[in-house]
Amino acid sequence: MLDTFIEAGKLKKLPRMGWLLRGVPHPESVAEHCFRVALITLFLADELKKGGVSINTERALKIALLHDLAEAKITDLPLEAQNYVDKKKAERKAMIDILGAEKVEYFELFREYEEEKSLEGRLVKFADKLEMILQAWEYEKAGIKGLDEFWNALEYLEQNEFHKYFGELIEELKELKGY
Amino acid sequence: MLDTFIEAGKLKKLPRMGWLLRGVPHPESVAEHCFRVALITLFLADELKKGGVSINTERALKIALLHDLAEAKITDLPLEAQNYVDKKKAERKAMIDILGAEKVEYFELFREYEEEKSLEGRLVKFADKLEMILQAWEYEKAGIKGLDEFWNALEYLEQNEFHKYFGELIEELKELKGY
Amino acid sequence: MLDTFIEAGKLKKLPRMGWLLRGVPHPESVAEHCFRVALITLFLADELKKGGVSINTERALKIALLHDLAEAKITDLPLEAQNYVDKKKAERKAMIDILGAEKVEYFELFREYEEEKSLEGRLVKFADKLEMILQAWEYEKAGIKGLDEFWNALEYLEQNEFHKYFGELIEELKELKGY
Amino acid sequence: MLDTFIEAGKLKKLPRMGWLLRGVPHPESVAEHCFRVALITLFLADELKKGGVSINTERALKIALLHDLAEAKITDLPLEAQNYVDKKKAERKAMIDILGAEKVEYFELFREYEEEKSLEGRLVKFADKLEMILQAWEYEKAGIKGLDEFWNALEYLEQNEFHKYFGELIEELKELKGY
Amino acid sequence: MLDTFIEAGKLKKLPRMGWLLRGVPHPESVAEHCFRVALITLFLADELKKGGVSINTERALKIALLHDLAEAKITDLPLEAQNYVDKKKAERKAMIDILGAEKVEYFELFREYEEEKSLEGRLVKFADKLEMILQAWEYEKAGIKGLDEFWNALEYLEQNEFHKYFGELIEELKELKGY
Amino acid sequence: MLDTFIEAGKLKKLPRMGWLLRGVPHPESVAEHCFRVALITLFLADELKKGGVSINTERALKIALLHDLAEAKITDLPLEAQNYVDKKKAERKAMIDILGAEKVEYFELFREYEEEKSLEGRLVKFADKLEMILQAWEYEKAGIKGLDEFWNALEYLEQNEFHKYFGELIEELKELKGY
Repeated sequence: MLDTFIEAGKLKKLPRMGWLLRGVPHPESVAEHCFRVALITLFLADELKKGGVSINTERALKIALLHDLAEAKITDLPLEAQNYVDKKKAERKAMIDILGAEKVEYFELFREYEEEKSLEGRLVKFADKLEMILQAWEYEKAGIKGLDEFWNALEYLEQNEFHKYFGELIEELKELKGY
Repeated sequence: MLDTFIEAGKLKKLPRMGWLLRGVPHPESVAEHCFRVALITLFLADELKKGGVSINTERALKIALLHDLAEAKITDLPLEAQNYVDKKKAERKAMIDILGAEKVEYFELFREYEEEKSLEGRLVKFADKLEMILQAWEYEKAGIKGLDEFWNALEYLEQNEFHKYFGELIEELKELKGY
Repeated sequence: MLDTFIEAGKLKKLPRMGWLLRGVPHPESVAEHCFRVALITLFLADELKKGGVSINTERALKIALLHDLAEAKITDLPLEAQNYVDKKKAERKAMIDILGAEKVEYFELFREYEEEKSLEGRLVKFADKLEMILQAWEYEKAGIKGLDEFWNALEYLEQNEFHKYFGELIEELKELKGY
Repeated sequence: MLDTFIEAGKLKKLPRMGWLLRGVPHPESVAEHCFRVALITLFLADELKKGGVSINTERALKIALLHDLAEAKITDLPLEAQNYVDKKKAERKAMIDILGAEKVEYFELFREYEEEKSLEGRLVKFADKLEMILQAWEYEKAGIKGLDEFWNALEYLEQNEFHKYFGELIEELKELKGY
Repeated sequence: MLDTFIEAGKLKKLPRMGWLLRGVPHPESVAEHCFRVALITLFLADELKKGGVSINTERALKIALLHDLAEAKITDLPLEAQNYVDKKKAERKAMIDILGAEKVEYFELFREYEEEKSLEGRLVKFADKLEMILQAWEYEKAGIKGLDEFWNALEYLEQNEFHKYFGELIEELKELKGY
Repeated sequence: MLDTFIEAGKLKKLPRMGWLLRGVPHPESVAEHCFRVALITLFLADELKKGGVSINTERALKIALLHDLAEAKITDLPLEAQNYVDKKKAERKAMIDILGAEKVEYFELFREYEEEKSLEGRLVKFADKLEMILQAWEYEKAGIKGLDEFWNALEYLEQNEFHKYFGELIEELKELKGY
């Protein structure tokens, strides 16, 4: 287990490449992003539950915490790099090595996110995109420019199955930007 | 909810003051620390469950994600500063403001951590200290000096109720240091 | 004395939280702020003296150098945090511990600033706010956004007893912003 | 051409991952590494020429400047990541996209480095490893620890075809470390 | 030679002062600037050659790599500082000390740049200014303000002997800015 | 006056080159150094006064605040660079430009430091060296290596006229290092 904790520590050092390549000075780390994705997942899952949706919050939180763990091995490859390497294949192999053979359960949780196989996995994907847009706005608020393309993810959120539950939240997000 | 997500974003900017005051260059943020505390909690809780302990993993994960949220308002006050301000009182007030009146459940979770009231709260406290020691070692491995006092927390871990389940893990941690 | 010098060294590491929380990358430290407050105090005090005002420049300079020293213990608590902790009380206790029992004179100088008790203390408060506005402008000049609320302090300067001596300076400051 | 210059600018932002993952604070960028590799290549090539070796310095310098250009697309993948992605294949594709179809000559130069096909390509590889060891020493000199494995590359240098020309240089390098 | 490589390593640490003084957070280093100047020189020299111009690419590349080496001793003095120190004289002395008495050839190459004595030296000067404008644009693209005066160098480029070969490139550069 | 305050702001951005060139990550700024020099001067001057020495504390504090102001124009030239530029001459010219023709008094204060002409000027020089040694120790305490040569200044302190008043302080400083 200690080895996995040490691997997870690398996420504190690895910068989120999207921001770095666009000139954000001292951008957030993968660990920072994952923290807020997990916190957002917590709130969204509980909200869904309150609304009568049958969701396994524990599973969702686990997926949120594991969803970028593979980057400890392969780093946060920017979109551009994904044209040249098979990121999905790399992530899968890396997850197996990080978790070890016996943690089949965790690898399955990771798969739920990767392939958007379960409601929980898809909720974390939703939280992941929402977190990214929020971060883009926070950088823009402080004066960073050139992050418009991150807001394209709003479309993903609006067309998402969770839009009917979190439409108000998405509207608030759009208002931040001035849409 | 968006407001809470924005508050949580501050944890990405707030440095962990213990490291900063000891001259660690560009120390980890509160969010980075929380991420790994939550991940450690995930693994430890599941391990306990496997060992037959009756633990609510979902509660533990939620506590882990909320346990430092108050710092978005009050910052990560170093130990020294805690001689001059009532940190516990400040955290409680801040949590109420961040969560809002209706999120009584989350405030209760925070209380479970603060007062070590439940098994889940105490597990997160255990994970919190373990994470700190691991981080100290990682800094030392890279050449930072002067972090000996953080290893005093080993005593806390060894005398802890969870020692009987994670004795091997703690031993591995000690071996890293050379004890 | 060496202990006090070592305490003062912490001000080099402590970031000014107002800027940090608004996303200023690598914001100034408390020590950097104090330096310019002291330099501004020097110029303003001599200007007052030239204008026939009876001011003790030595006292004013000492106050400027000591006015944030307590932050070595309690850090630069952001405005938000001051809703949750008793900053004034904390600063007072911290100053006593930093200076030691015998340096009553220095504690008194700090009190002159805190309570705006003397002309010298009030001049340093004036310099402190002026320095903050100037720094806000410098960040804005480099592209940082979202610092408008710092300019509210202009009102403090304009309604200040020193306005009649430094009206031109304040006007120049306003012109920088485009007022 | 401007597009290629803009691509090259990314190398200023991309950190050298080997150092970053070992906790070097604010590690060098790929551009910084490439600069010194090119400068070293300049000196070594001229030295070879003086010794009667038939080397094309212009080719060697071009290879040195182009050898990491692909990282503008795929980033500086750490050794660990190379277990999960086909770096060579990715670099080749990325180089073609960066240079464009018509710059066949530059792609060939890159190939000379990748496959160590020519004396010039092999000299740049030698310079690349030497530069890395020198950088490791510079970090160690400043107090960084845990960089021992970078010194394994000394073996590569000693068994290299260029050892007979630069044996003294390699000895000086070893003396820095204390071998 | 190792000493010269160590001197060159300082260029990785030395910030480009023009950006630093205008508040660019974590500005590029001299080494990063030199890298891209050399790469630009590579492309421009080959382009000239293709157009039938008699240019010695090897010389040009060497000049590009050596042109700021003196800054390892004297740092990148900002324009303002050059009103107070004799930069040209300092650079010349520093280059002699860095290169050593025997490397007369390299000192000559540096002179070709300094005094714009040869086509190669002037090409590197052209590349140096072009690189600076491109970097200014990249900072502006990310949100930095206050860099207008760097665009004055466009005039230098347009009135330059190389304008007839690279007019299109300069136009593209202007279009980036919106001219 | 505002112009001088803006000039002084540059000292917040300018790194202390001695540390930077020795690989200290994110070294202190000139402003941070000046702050503590001034604070140390405050304590030392008052101590001297208590001991019956006739010292003008106000003059000493002003000198401490002005002593590096010229660096706003010429930067903090490292020792090495001072072999190539006439630092004293540059500083003098720069000070005149920063202060303006009418502030003759401040220029005189600067001269007292530069030429160690007065007791106050020499006390600030003493504080300046003491501050540097203390900072070196603080970096070493955190793990930085290679700063031994800064401790040579201990000799300067021990042979200094102020040694007879601050012998104990200097001894405490030596004990930190282990002498």
